[in-house]
Amino acid sequence: MKRIIYADNAATTRLDPEALQAMLPFLNEEYANPSQRYSFSKNSRSALSQARDTIAKCINSEPEEIFFTSGGTESDNWAIKGAAMYNGRNKPIIVSSFEHHAVLNACKHLEEIGFPVAYLQPTEKGLIETYSLSKMIHTPSLVSIMLVNNELGSIQPIKELAEVAHKHGAVFHTDAVQALGHIPVDVKMLGVDMLSASAHKFNGPKGIGFLYIKKGTELYPYMDGGSQEKGQRAGTENVAAIVGMAAALKNNCISLTQNRDHIENLSKVFLSNLNGGFVLNGTNRYEGIINISFRDISGESLFHMLDLKGICISTGAACNSIKTQISHVLDAIRLPEEYAKGTIRVSF
Amino acid sequence: MKRIIYADNAATTRLDPEALQAMLPFLNEEYANPSQRYSFSKNSRSALSQARDTIAKCINSEPEEIFFTSGGTESDNWAIKGAAMYNGRNKPIIVSSFEHHAVLNACKHLEEIGFPVAYLQPTEKGLIETYSLSKMIHTPSLVSIMLVNNELGSIQPIKELAEVAHKHGAVFHTDAVQALGHIPVDVKMLGVDMLSASAHKFNGPKGIGFLYIKKGTELYPYMDGGSQEKGQRAGTENVAAIVGMAAALKNNCISLTQNRDHIENLSKVFLSNLNGGFVLNGTNRYEGIINISFRDISGESLFHMLDLKGICISTGAACNSIKTQISHVLDAIRLPEEYAKGTIRVSF
Repeated sequence: MKRIIYADNAATTRLDPEALQAMLPFLNEEYANPSQRYSFSKNSRSALSQARDTIAKCINSEPEEIFFTSGGTESDNWAIKGAAMYNGRNKPIIVSSFEHHAVLNACKHLEEIGFPVAYLQPTEKGLIETYSLSKMIHTPSLVSIMLVNNELGSIQPIKELAEVAHKHGAVFHTDAVQALGHIPVDVKMLGVDMLSASAHKFNGPKGIGFLYIKKGTELYPYMDGGSQEKGQRAGTENVAAIVGMAAALKNNCISLTQNRDHIENLSKVFLSNLNGGFVLNGTNRYEGIINISFRDISGESLFHMLDLKGICISTGAACNSIKTQISHVLDAIRLPEEYAKGTIRVSF
Repeated sequence: MKRIIYADNAATTRLDPEALQAMLPFLNEEYANPSQRYSFSKNSRSALSQARDTIAKCINSEPEEIFFTSGGTESDNWAIKGAAMYNGRNKPIIVSSFEHHAVLNACKHLEEIGFPVAYLQPTEKGLIETYSLSKMIHTPSLVSIMLVNNELGSIQPIKELAEVAHKHGAVFHTDAVQALGHIPVDVKMLGVDMLSASAHKFNGPKGIGFLYIKKGTELYPYMDGGSQEKGQRAGTENVAAIVGMAAALKNNCISLTQNRDHIENLSKVFLSNLNGGFVLNGTNRYEGIINISFRDISGESLFHMLDLKGICISTGAACNSIKTQISHVLDAIRLPEEYAKGTIRVSF
């Protein structure tokens, strides 16, 4: 295999070898359905329970506030649609205009079926200000703003935004997919009611994630069926992936400061080696996501030139890389077109 | 580890070792996000495409009619809610009363938000008759009837039921979760518009499945977000699990006749060794699912006695095993209470 330099960790990350080791028994002999009550299910059932405890500790929640899902997209769809549908069409949902498409397209669908949605504009530096939320908010049912923007890396003032939302009686959700495992995430400190996470963004396996739902938060389940996850999320539990997710998150949280220092260094070296002529987008950034624009240079060409050298970066969010248009995030921060077209994301 | 006799394959199955081998590269070095366009993503992208081809061949569909989901529950929720919401509240949905809870509870949710749902009763032998569908049907939007009942093993006359549904302009969905990999499934022969499948029921991994959607069938996506799966199912593809699912399904389909002969023999030996005093529920059965009732014996006690001997069976569907009440399936076939309480499911 050709040697590659992988600098697209915001798209997906390599599975932690310890997470894989933790998964293997459940992909081999411990295949029992954890919902069964015979002795053979004990190990898979207790593995689920341990994973829930581990994850809860990492985000300072109660274990029973963690609900396993198939990933960030499901968590976002559940949070947004589940809360909106529960609360009805009278009250608007407020989201930022540079959320991940899992949030934005869930909102778009809700709009199509008659739910009012209002969009908060970020500043040109990529931040959502509490002031603009205060101005817009009347009696929304739900406010959803991401913790770390997936293209810019900008860290949003979630604690303050959640306070504003709560003052007006709204439920507050944050998409923490790009944050968890990379910056400290404490649901009590943040004061959020719901938080979405995706394992493959923090060295866990693909196809698994969770939604934190603070006790007392009211929303519909999204997957109806069996009584798994206390009747809130049906479907046979993906035991191996859940165990892998917990192991990866635990490792990432233990090494968080160390990893962050390393990434900060990488980031400094990287930026200091660029010979100027670029703009670094976003402020209050998580160091691992670097979004830079070159005036009148095609990001597309840059992407392909780097690919030829075995260097993996991104021109936009991975989920939309099939399209090569200017991303909605760069649109939202009003980046001039001559820069927007020359934008790449490097993520360590 | 204590030796166990696992006779609960309708709850979940052991992962095919070849499926695990096929998965491992994608849990190790081939971790690229298949939506990215750099060379490093080529292998994961082509693995997805090959898996889609393999699965399509197994059910005689086109590859572009296969949409990967997180399992049977998501596939059912998508098919039922996606089609119902697309078609609106004017036309009823018709389902059988002994569907899996993933279908029934999706319908229950739709009823709560104003969609009309009608329930077809099976015969006492566990079959849905075309006659009863013809009698009930007027202008439904969707008819959903499972291919193999998960508790009884009874194989429903899907081809004929789909014809009746189509005559009345309805879309026809079948939950084939208990059928695929065990009996021949050909979507063209069956004439269905949508078909749900779950990998862990045919020796694939947990947390993955697919929905077959015949070209031209209209429904809303269920997971909104990125543009994966041609914009119909958002979320980073679970490459390893998809590859594992395809490998397991291919192996099961190749060995289908041989496996079925073996299971038929097991089933005969099992039944002939019971000393009478039981009723075999269901007719036109898939041999691998045996549902038997003992008069005035507690199924619960039997379950625990067998568990002590290391024998895994079920008293109801796995997803509802936490509750020990009489299952909705036994209710639907009007099994007298003195038998219903003494019912177990053995699945080879």
